[in-house]
Amino acid sequence: MAKLWDKGTNSHTEATQLIENFTVGKDRELDVWLAPFDVLGSVAHIRMLESIGLLDTTELTQLVVALADIYQAAQSGNFIIEAGIEDVHSQVEMMLTQKLGDVGKKIHSGRSRNDQVLLDLKLYMRHEIKEVVQLTTALFEQLMQLSDQHKNTLLPGYTHLQVAMPSSFGLWFGAYAESLTDDLLLLQAVYRIANQNPLGSAAGYGSSFPLDRQMTTDLLGFERLNYNVVYAQMGRGKVEKNVAFALGAIGGSLAKMAMDVCLYMNQNFGFITFPDHLTTGSSIMPHKKNPDVFELIRAKGNKLQALSNEILMITANLPSGYHRDLQLIKENFLPAFADLKACLQIATYMFQHIQIKEDILKSEKYKYLFSVEEVNKQVLAGTPFREAYKNVGLAIDAGNFDPDQSIAHTHIGSIGNPGNQQVQQKMQHIVQSFDFASVTQALDRLWEL
Amino acid sequence: MAKLWDKGTNSHTEATQLIENFTVGKDRELDVWLAPFDVLGSVAHIRMLESIGLLDTTELTQLVVALADIYQAAQSGNFIIEAGIEDVHSQVEMMLTQKLGDVGKKIHSGRSRNDQVLLDLKLYMRHEIKEVVQLTTALFEQLMQLSDQHKNTLLPGYTHLQVAMPSSFGLWFGAYAESLTDDLLLLQAVYRIANQNPLGSAAGYGSSFPLDRQMTTDLLGFERLNYNVVYAQMGRGKVEKNVAFALGAIGGSLAKMAMDVCLYMNQNFGFITFPDHLTTGSSIMPHKKNPDVFELIRAKGNKLQALSNEILMITANLPSGYHRDLQLIKENFLPAFADLKACLQIATYMFQHIQIKEDILKSEKYKYLFSVEEVNKQVLAGTPFREAYKNVGLAIDAGNFDPDQSIAHTHIGSIGNPGNQQVQQKMQHIVQSFDFASVTQALDRLWEL
Amino acid sequence: MAKLWDKGTNSHTEATQLIENFTVGKDRELDVWLAPFDVLGSVAHIRMLESIGLLDTTELTQLVVALADIYQAAQSGNFIIEAGIEDVHSQVEMMLTQKLGDVGKKIHSGRSRNDQVLLDLKLYMRHEIKEVVQLTTALFEQLMQLSDQHKNTLLPGYTHLQVAMPSSFGLWFGAYAESLTDDLLLLQAVYRIANQNPLGSAAGYGSSFPLDRQMTTDLLGFERLNYNVVYAQMGRGKVEKNVAFALGAIGGSLAKMAMDVCLYMNQNFGFITFPDHLTTGSSIMPHKKNPDVFELIRAKGNKLQALSNEILMITANLPSGYHRDLQLIKENFLPAFADLKACLQIATYMFQHIQIKEDILKSEKYKYLFSVEEVNKQVLAGTPFREAYKNVGLAIDAGNFDPDQSIAHTHIGSIGNPGNQQVQQKMQHIVQSFDFASVTQALDRLWEL
Amino acid sequence: MAKLWDKGTNSHTEATQLIENFTVGKDRELDVWLAPFDVLGSVAHIRMLESIGLLDTTELTQLVVALADIYQAAQSGNFIIEAGIEDVHSQVEMMLTQKLGDVGKKIHSGRSRNDQVLLDLKLYMRHEIKEVVQLTTALFEQLMQLSDQHKNTLLPGYTHLQVAMPSSFGLWFGAYAESLTDDLLLLQAVYRIANQNPLGSAAGYGSSFPLDRQMTTDLLGFERLNYNVVYAQMGRGKVEKNVAFALGAIGGSLAKMAMDVCLYMNQNFGFITFPDHLTTGSSIMPHKKNPDVFELIRAKGNKLQALSNEILMITANLPSGYHRDLQLIKENFLPAFADLKACLQIATYMFQHIQIKEDILKSEKYKYLFSVEEVNKQVLAGTPFREAYKNVGLAIDAGNFDPDQSIAHTHIGSIGNPGNQQVQQKMQHIVQSFDFASVTQALDRLWEL
Repeated sequence: MAKLWDKGTNSHTEATQLIENFTVGKDRELDVWLAPFDVLGSVAHIRMLESIGLLDTTELTQLVVALADIYQAAQSGNFIIEAGIEDVHSQVEMMLTQKLGDVGKKIHSGRSRNDQVLLDLKLYMRHEIKEVVQLTTALFEQLMQLSDQHKNTLLPGYTHLQVAMPSSFGLWFGAYAESLTDDLLLLQAVYRIANQNPLGSAAGYGSSFPLDRQMTTDLLGFERLNYNVVYAQMGRGKVEKNVAFALGAIGGSLAKMAMDVCLYMNQNFGFITFPDHLTTGSSIMPHKKNPDVFELIRAKGNKLQALSNEILMITANLPSGYHRDLQLIKENFLPAFADLKACLQIATYMFQHIQIKEDILKSEKYKYLFSVEEVNKQVLAGTPFREAYKNVGLAIDAGNFDPDQSIAHTHIGSIGNPGNQQVQQKMQHIVQSFDFASVTQALDRLWEL
Repeated sequence: MAKLWDKGTNSHTEATQLIENFTVGKDRELDVWLAPFDVLGSVAHIRMLESIGLLDTTELTQLVVALADIYQAAQSGNFIIEAGIEDVHSQVEMMLTQKLGDVGKKIHSGRSRNDQVLLDLKLYMRHEIKEVVQLTTALFEQLMQLSDQHKNTLLPGYTHLQVAMPSSFGLWFGAYAESLTDDLLLLQAVYRIANQNPLGSAAGYGSSFPLDRQMTTDLLGFERLNYNVVYAQMGRGKVEKNVAFALGAIGGSLAKMAMDVCLYMNQNFGFITFPDHLTTGSSIMPHKKNPDVFELIRAKGNKLQALSNEILMITANLPSGYHRDLQLIKENFLPAFADLKACLQIATYMFQHIQIKEDILKSEKYKYLFSVEEVNKQVLAGTPFREAYKNVGLAIDAGNFDPDQSIAHTHIGSIGNPGNQQVQQKMQHIVQSFDFASVTQALDRLWEL
Repeated sequence: MAKLWDKGTNSHTEATQLIENFTVGKDRELDVWLAPFDVLGSVAHIRMLESIGLLDTTELTQLVVALADIYQAAQSGNFIIEAGIEDVHSQVEMMLTQKLGDVGKKIHSGRSRNDQVLLDLKLYMRHEIKEVVQLTTALFEQLMQLSDQHKNTLLPGYTHLQVAMPSSFGLWFGAYAESLTDDLLLLQAVYRIANQNPLGSAAGYGSSFPLDRQMTTDLLGFERLNYNVVYAQMGRGKVEKNVAFALGAIGGSLAKMAMDVCLYMNQNFGFITFPDHLTTGSSIMPHKKNPDVFELIRAKGNKLQALSNEILMITANLPSGYHRDLQLIKENFLPAFADLKACLQIATYMFQHIQIKEDILKSEKYKYLFSVEEVNKQVLAGTPFREAYKNVGLAIDAGNFDPDQSIAHTHIGSIGNPGNQQVQQKMQHIVQSFDFASVTQALDRLWEL
Repeated sequence: MAKLWDKGTNSHTEATQLIENFTVGKDRELDVWLAPFDVLGSVAHIRMLESIGLLDTTELTQLVVALADIYQAAQSGNFIIEAGIEDVHSQVEMMLTQKLGDVGKKIHSGRSRNDQVLLDLKLYMRHEIKEVVQLTTALFEQLMQLSDQHKNTLLPGYTHLQVAMPSSFGLWFGAYAESLTDDLLLLQAVYRIANQNPLGSAAGYGSSFPLDRQMTTDLLGFERLNYNVVYAQMGRGKVEKNVAFALGAIGGSLAKMAMDVCLYMNQNFGFITFPDHLTTGSSIMPHKKNPDVFELIRAKGNKLQALSNEILMITANLPSGYHRDLQLIKENFLPAFADLKACLQIATYMFQHIQIKEDILKSEKYKYLFSVEEVNKQVLAGTPFREAYKNVGLAIDAGNFDPDQSIAHTHIGSIGNPGNQQVQQKMQHIVQSFDFASVTQALDRLWEL
């Protein structure tokens, strides 16, 4: 099967095959992920083509019906890109042409594979980001619930990895919940950057056809257009880089949490554990209960944090205009969503089963945790801070330090008053501002002729 | 001069000096940048301390007056951190104590250097981001004006660095302007992440004093609190990483634009130039007019793009809680704003003097630019796309391709209709949403007792 | 099928399945790449076990024969890791146990999966690096041949992307050849770091069995041992990082060369081209001859340059000792060799067919290339350099500059005398120092009982 | 003072000043570091110029004497780059011209600032790498001595951060010592890449003067030339990237070791400590003894690991030939050596004072460390491995596990037999192969006329 850009003059020698194998790379495999989105984009495009007279109503109906079949196949995992076909766009066009003849070829009018793949990627990202938000919210809720439940269960707080001041499991769980709110704030910004319609930019310089770009924008539920066609093309690589960074931000929160979990499960800390069947053993050490799940969450979170740098390295210093380099970004970018989603899911599951040790601070080794409490009590009784500080220090040095271990933190965000209600409100506000509903509504109407 | 945490038991041996030199590093020099913000934070903190009875009104007044003097000094570049003083916090406290005696020591109640430096950094970032937004807007306006002016001046459009389709200077300038709108969308998200009050988190585990954290939040004009104190501390490194990435995003747009400029100034392209006194020469090639300014914008933009990765590398896999490692982030992070601002300023200046070549497309080597136009004309006249495409290809192969060079692109975002008005509106909307005015108003009221 | 570390007490619930799916990840697929090397390592290990009395001679013979079958399967692509089996090590042991009963279980004595996978990875790297060296040498030879052939074919030399001084195709091809010599110098260092035997380090703390680690070192042809067992384990991640960087160095040379190729194929430069069937077309622009091959070489080269950073991000700040995180490195590391090898092969192929434009410098736009030549001629005739420089500059300004275009560069490394013979010698010396032959000889003897 | 490339036609307007400030950046400050090396390079260059008749003997003598004075100043910290002078090269030439008139101008013949700065950088790197090797060796010796001393002092070994098997302080110290040997293997490769003479490549395209490049190579003690002049220029950025990576490798070993130290100093581990005056306190927690030194070693080590990525980001996708971007690399690259050297020095100092806890493994929580020992004992007594493994696992589950805690590891690299002698030999061999002596000898002869 010839490639779209084959003008019929090439002899299909071994050389050509070599070149094809090298250039196609993993596109055929990766493009399957984009198939449903490619179809959605085509439906919007041909409805617009019909509105400006480049298709007639009959042709439109034929094409929409045929595309609906392909969409079904793509949704149910039955869409494949055949050997010899370069990419998803060519595969869809070939299927239409086999079914409808010349009408199938007309869908490419006013469009280039450059804006088509850009569109596919943006629809894909939009879809995946929505799922990431849902799974992040689920983990957030789990952490909030644990934070409420354990808000007064004390935990040593460390600075410089040295025993420092009393903390609580409530603060610890809640901190990672609040971390996710900021991560979604960032994700929302990159979502808005992604949620702009590039269609109509063609090869990056627009089209001499009288395209109605606002129409496809509305049909696909985009917030707005990438107006300038040169900028629309420039978004390739840039959008992925931004989205990758925001995925990495969530990955970073998960990785840090996982590092804490691994440390707290370590026998020297021993603050938390999980049921046996959620940990793994060792081939040589029969007593081991290893936190493999959290080690892999940590590793995957960190790997996600390296992704935007890879994209930057590929795109750095490329002049404006499309370059084939941009295709390579897909290899690690498309699967990143699935990796992150798996981490979010399993983290939520694990936290549903976490086991907390009580009365940790009763151990002698934590008594100095209360030194600052003691300093503050003296201050509240009238001693200047620096003097109270020196008094307690000297008592510690002299071995006379015997603190009262009661905790009475009252300000917002502290032990016993972690501020979870406010954090919940912040999260709700951020999630609502994604406005996923307007996208759903648009896509629901897309197929109605 | 002793360090704050010196309990008076150390002998000041050579060893201690060695340790001090290594650990202080560049803190003394870098902390000067934070001095005015440290003072602002202290004013808010002591007003709050007075409201909860930890300072009386007279003490508050004394301290505010003395801090006002220090603020003046910091604003006018006369603040220095003396030899033997570790950091800005110690220097300010020492100045207050020298002037006011024991009252000076009281400002540290309910606060740790951990939340103090976090606060300083956030106030610094907020201030610097505002300036970045202003300078980005200025460059945006300059590009928009050039885009309007040259919207019909044609330029070859390249894909794969191959001559592809007609473009225009209007699209080229406008593309980078629109790119800046998305960069500010990202910057706004990280601004909101930064614009949350960490004060009251103390060493990262809150305080047993009945702090009124909402009061300092309002006094300093923050959007909200970092509620959970463990999360507030966790923001260290994370906020810088996010802000660095957003600065890098603007840097990336500038770098790409600079790459185009260097290419377009190259004699083989020859599309643009600048007056002699804005370019530089060579010590050995008398005819050279080198685009050093744009090469350095490109390099600085790319360097900014590497900054978030450096911060990530420093912070990856650190468990929760403060670590001294976090101080090292300041070294490349604090100066990054000045670097970016310099790039934005000089880019704006350069574009005020750019010289555009007219009639570029008249050259024979660009005639194939019009092949797609020709294909589309045949399609509009009824030929199916793939046939029209083949016709033009064969004409080119046969040497018969002689295109009409008139351009009639009409859709939004294309040559002649770059959509600048819509891009302007988008930009205005984004800039307004930073709501810098509310910060200014809060800070104006901060000193009013 | 149970996992090796399953003590028989777990109920195989859905939860366990969830955990297994998450933790196994792509290990099953990736470990197939390691299968032949896992077998080689096992042969060395059991020969050593027999030498210290932990296996008898009959058992050894049985095991070697059975392993030979597995090796055949692995070499011919017929080795698979069955569903429910965690990794290559478990699969091999299960196959042996199915065939030989309890004897099969004995191969795990004195070994952990930690040192086993380390060993597999090192044998894999050693094998792949050899192939990379061979393919790099082939590309080097092709470039050297082109450099010799075109050493006097002139090309404009650019600085700041501005026309600067005369260069030649000979220098251009030769520069990238010489670049590869330095890349192999680096590769040789990381090869030596990889080529040290970790076997016997077990889980990272050695074994109470009286292992003969020097024997396995010799059997497998390693240069030496990773002596300290804690360090042997610490090599995981570190070795991959170093090797990845060295692969990236070659990738960097290829990427830079590809950037030049794309620029020189651009119509504004027009210095080189390739036969039609080695370039690709456009779906919408019939005249395009796109350098997709080189764009993808560039992208893959840059992606390789980002790999060591990803590994660093995964491993940064992990304390000593094995962590499951290290497994994730395989995902992008194992396939990196194939990517690089494909780039080297196709680059060599493309350069066999490159077409060079002659007489480029005859064009008027390059006449200032000769300004430095003219300055030097005046200097050789006795004028001080700065004066000669000013003279030529003024002539150019006055429009009187009409240079003699003959070139007489004589020093080594210059036009006409590119120093290729010396570069060849350097390369030979570096390639020889890898001493691949000693590895081949050892492995040839490995199976001889 | 005019710049070298100023042809005298510019009016020195504000604009020019703006451009100058932006383009000079920190060059004036950074170039001071290069001053002594710039002088050495000039001495070699003019001796070569005299040998080919471009200087007479009297001129050479005058110049060498004047350069000796400048070298003295640079060595003693009295060399400054004056306001209005662009860089070190211009400053040196100006000083010579002020003293010697027109003769001073002659030193620039056959040279460009491009090869001059390349040469300076390489001489600087060579000098600094030597110091890094010396300091690394000192740390190595300290670690080896501790390893010998504590080879039988037991320490828990962790995998997955879970208590796993017995280890020893001897293994722990020795592991980091051996890690440094591999880091120096890498450093030696990049040293050889750096230790090649670029002089004579001029602006990147060689010179029409009959330069004797082998002579300058010998005079400066380089291993060989960068033969091809286009490649010599291409080394800019590439050499720094490679060297930065090797510095980062040492930084990575230090960072990992520092992470262990911070963990082992943590009260939950409590394996090691340092005298009070080598740790730091807290402003709010009087009992703290913080490992700031190691936290900063860790942070600096990680920052060094990010440096090669920054350089890659600046240089990625730049076509061949000099670009001003390359100057920006100096900002973080030049100071990186001093940072690493400070880390090496203070780490050595700290380890001279480390305090080791004895009898750690006597604690109940470590008894399962001996499970593998027990398994192996059963195996040595004839039980198949998998059965012994199951036996011990069941004993642990039943609470009957009461191991003999004697340790009898015998193989090389294990507890009690860490293989330090072999590691020492490896290190000596690597350090000798740098052959610093030949450089010293060459430089000693450089001034002898």
